[in-house]
Amino acid sequence: MILSVMEREIAWGDLDALGIVFYPRYYEWMDAAGHQFFKTIDLNLYDLWEKRNIQFGLLETSCRYFKPGRYGLKIKIKTRLEELSKKTVLLRHEIQQAADEKIVEGFEKRICLNVTDIKNFKSMDIPQDLFAVLENAGRD
Amino acid sequence: MILSVMEREIAWGDLDALGIVFYPRYYEWMDAAGHQFFKTIDLNLYDLWEKRNIQFGLLETSCRYFKPGRYGLKIKIKTRLEELSKKTVLLRHEIQQAADEKIVEGFEKRICLNVTDIKNFKSMDIPQDLFAVLENAGRD
Amino acid sequence: MILSVMEREIAWGDLDALGIVFYPRYYEWMDAAGHQFFKTIDLNLYDLWEKRNIQFGLLETSCRYFKPGRYGLKIKIKTRLEELSKKTVLLRHEIQQAADEKIVEGFEKRICLNVTDIKNFKSMDIPQDLFAVLENAGRD
Amino acid sequence: MILSVMEREIAWGDLDALGIVFYPRYYEWMDAAGHQFFKTIDLNLYDLWEKRNIQFGLLETSCRYFKPGRYGLKIKIKTRLEELSKKTVLLRHEIQQAADEKIVEGFEKRICLNVTDIKNFKSMDIPQDLFAVLENAGRD
Repeated sequence: MILSVMEREIAWGDLDALGIVFYPRYYEWMDAAGHQFFKTIDLNLYDLWEKRNIQFGLLETSCRYFKPGRYGLKIKIKTRLEELSKKTVLLRHEIQQAADEKIVEGFEKRICLNVTDIKNFKSMDIPQDLFAVLENAGRD
Repeated sequence: MILSVMEREIAWGDLDALGIVFYPRYYEWMDAAGHQFFKTIDLNLYDLWEKRNIQFGLLETSCRYFKPGRYGLKIKIKTRLEELSKKTVLLRHEIQQAADEKIVEGFEKRICLNVTDIKNFKSMDIPQDLFAVLENAGRD
Repeated sequence: MILSVMEREIAWGDLDALGIVFYPRYYEWMDAAGHQFFKTIDLNLYDLWEKRNIQFGLLETSCRYFKPGRYGLKIKIKTRLEELSKKTVLLRHEIQQAADEKIVEGFEKRICLNVTDIKNFKSMDIPQDLFAVLENAGRD
Repeated sequence: MILSVMEREIAWGDLDALGIVFYPRYYEWMDAAGHQFFKTIDLNLYDLWEKRNIQFGLLETSCRYFKPGRYGLKIKIKTRLEELSKKTVLLRHEIQQAADEKIVEGFEKRICLNVTDIKNFKSMDIPQDLFAVLENAGRD
């Protein structure tokens, strides 16, 4: 199973008035981690859009918060493919402190879209070549 | 039942390269809508922190996406209290287009915290006076 | 002279750990206020892009900060066209507290771009019809 | 002269509908780069606040934009101290593509503040020990 890891340091601009991470930031990082996951398995989402008019749009996202993230903390966002269906993928993200202690866990469920008509996206089956790559990435 | 409504217009800076709302923005708006909900029932969260060292910290958030949000769209974020327990509240947010058509639905589950020690928050029972106000706000 | 005014309330998510607005937020608001200024004079920047492949890209931005913005403050962002040249516009933004007290002042200098080739924008003279509208908007 | 360098990759969430970086993001990165600059010279801004009630608040920021930042681009933010006065510091930031080609240049001018009273910051002379460290950091 492919596990993609992105590292970052919690910055001043990520904090709210309590001195802890303002929670939408975690979703920004999960989105970036998802893109990196796709790159890791040689699927560049931007190229997929430009060359084949395919995108993976969002159906659902979710996070559970275990500990507050604080200034200067070095974190890891570990991403793996947890579910794959004909049209959808579910990416699972764990955000950990240095010592492998989980601070946030979340997922993004995405659906394969034909975006040729930029004003009217249509869901579609994941093309076979992409499905094969994703299936392989999720295999234990 | 109290229903708080926040209006806004989708701006250029909310969009991603596909010309639709970058999804962490919805969480930013839900957070603001939650604060407004509390103000509507005369609980100013900032005052609560400053005067009583109480905050409602996050346990879990989630969104489902029905339609992409696009430039210039005028939206309404409708917020209500869906669940109340001894320590927690769950706010439900519906983001709608002008014609009451849902584009996003989500929730924030929050837990009552004693934040006197800014480096070590502790969960606590919701104080009775606040509980009464919240109970009333959720009543049909 | 056209003066466009946008109102907003400073939200929890705009604050940093000191409890004051994290300064990149002011630029987000100025960008939105600029778009609204253009709408006020019947130039929808999104349409301009989609229908005529024209955008006003950034050359320079700047802000001076007079007072910190705090939670719940109701602010006004007042925008006017300060300079117009063959290829460029300069929008001046004043961010004020309710009582017309300035908290931030800034500008955005933008250049007219032909964005037909999305990977290679080219500067161009502002088309005559747009120039006339802008000239009128800046006239005392 | 101390030159602090921060690297990052432009992410999907940094882009606007034209597929280029939404400009307030550059200020977010400059802010983070400024904090890293201070860490490089052993001044942790968060500690400075917590232990001595000192912060460097913003007087003015500015950016000039030379080339649009695009998806996946690996950039460097190079930060140095350009000016130092009794009360103020000016940090200069250059954002470069891999090949040392400048895409954005900007500055942050900050003033030393006593933030003991969190609702009423007061400007102050930079304490001698900090001034000495900063003077050294800016020396050629």
